[in-house]
Amino acid sequence: MYELDDQQRAAQSWFSRLRDDICSALERLEDEAAGPAPAGRFQRTAWDRPDAGGGHGGGGVMSVLKGRVFEKAGVNISTVHGEFSPEFAKQINGASDDPRFFATGISLVIHPLNPLVPAVHLNTRFLVTTRRWFGGGADLNPALPDDGQTKAFHDALRIMAGRHDPAYYPAYKKWAEDYFWVPHRNRHRGVGGIFYDHLDSGDWAKDFAFTQDVGATFLDIYPRLVREKMHQPYSAADRLTQLRYRGLYAEFNLVYDRGTTFGLKTGGNVDAILMSLPPEARWD
Amino acid sequence: MYELDDQQRAAQSWFSRLRDDICSALERLEDEAAGPAPAGRFQRTAWDRPDAGGGHGGGGVMSVLKGRVFEKAGVNISTVHGEFSPEFAKQINGASDDPRFFATGISLVIHPLNPLVPAVHLNTRFLVTTRRWFGGGADLNPALPDDGQTKAFHDALRIMAGRHDPAYYPAYKKWAEDYFWVPHRNRHRGVGGIFYDHLDSGDWAKDFAFTQDVGATFLDIYPRLVREKMHQPYSAADRLTQLRYRGLYAEFNLVYDRGTTFGLKTGGNVDAILMSLPPEARWD
Repeated sequence: MYELDDQQRAAQSWFSRLRDDICSALERLEDEAAGPAPAGRFQRTAWDRPDAGGGHGGGGVMSVLKGRVFEKAGVNISTVHGEFSPEFAKQINGASDDPRFFATGISLVIHPLNPLVPAVHLNTRFLVTTRRWFGGGADLNPALPDDGQTKAFHDALRIMAGRHDPAYYPAYKKWAEDYFWVPHRNRHRGVGGIFYDHLDSGDWAKDFAFTQDVGATFLDIYPRLVREKMHQPYSAADRLTQLRYRGLYAEFNLVYDRGTTFGLKTGGNVDAILMSLPPEARWD
Repeated sequence: MYELDDQQRAAQSWFSRLRDDICSALERLEDEAAGPAPAGRFQRTAWDRPDAGGGHGGGGVMSVLKGRVFEKAGVNISTVHGEFSPEFAKQINGASDDPRFFATGISLVIHPLNPLVPAVHLNTRFLVTTRRWFGGGADLNPALPDDGQTKAFHDALRIMAGRHDPAYYPAYKKWAEDYFWVPHRNRHRGVGGIFYDHLDSGDWAKDFAFTQDVGATFLDIYPRLVREKMHQPYSAADRLTQLRYRGLYAEFNLVYDRGTTFGLKTGGNVDAILMSLPPEARWD
């Protein structure tokens, strides 16, 4: 039995509530959509982290919706604890001398059906080793970028981040640009957003508030972007562009994304990890 | 100007002729197929390896067919030379003291439209550093495995390999089993075949003959497997199984395949590398 302390409990509770709110918001969009297909609903699947001895444990809940607005939307929350392998512990902030860790977080990837509606990715987490920090980010992935929507997404993050620290947005926008660069395609995945890690300002409540605000801002802006586009007609050529863009998206996740490659190679929950992959993609 | 020696010229010439023969055989299958769609034909695209100084050079030719039997078939030949980076040279047979290398080879991936027709992969190559060796393999990747076809494919390779050395087939079959294991899916990609590397028996002509025979055997057996299945009707459920199987195929190539990940991360020819990815795949 692993006893969560107040910070761990508060973070876990927030990620769970954010999951509920995001799932509700996406289901409302499913209800608003026209069309003969039924409105999609999230299906939840709980999973446990196998206890391989050594005090490993915890688990998570995947929520997956396959609907008429969202071809595939996956929202995963997890809370796990254990010990990093000696080799891996060296690479982790605060774990070189004591490999024990605790992690709680939310991760979501949304692949809309309509190619005009942007796909999106959000991930925020609270990590505890001998140190404690937040990390995460949100980035927009339209197959057919729209300058107005790109600006609205970045404006929302910029204004939100500015309320916490004027240095955050420029630094975290740059971090996302660096992270989502796909060298072999000589382009970025998506139109950016923010990415941050090892956030430990010395004021836990401040850092938690920022992380909460990243989630709340996403919850506000993304459904607005979807509503703007979800009723617009699209062509077969638009759909093809989207399916090919999703090929790039899958390449990035499988070749470069640290969470995906690390998770796959170290026995993470495969279904939860692969939830990020697009429902359909083309390399033709 | 890089002067090829007799062995290099012989190997390059064989891979080029094998490419011609394979492309012809696949085009004949396109001609034999019924259906309103036109018979597919290979389109060839040559590419040059950028000369970044230091005597790098060479290039290759991609041949891609999008037809009615083969949704996407790609056959790539390349002949390149240069110097491995100091770090990479350490990992390569015979390159630790002298990083210069020469490589010539053929690589193909075939993704048929009909889910009952097996996808297939073949790669053979001749490498020269301070040592010289052959490597390669062939493996069958049916979305819906058929025991008879699996046996026929393995029998062809077993009988062929047995003509060269009784130790080859058991060892190279095992090598393929190990190589095409997908840990995160807890299964193999495909139903196996053979995989070999660093083949240098001391008798170059013998090793070249074996490598030629791998190609010739593929050219004999694969069209026969296609002919058996290409006219069989399939269901939407079969197609879905195929598209999901191709998701696994893409995962293997992007996460584990040494050629793909090495090529993408070191500035290889991206189009030639990604030629292996399926024309359409699903993760739903």
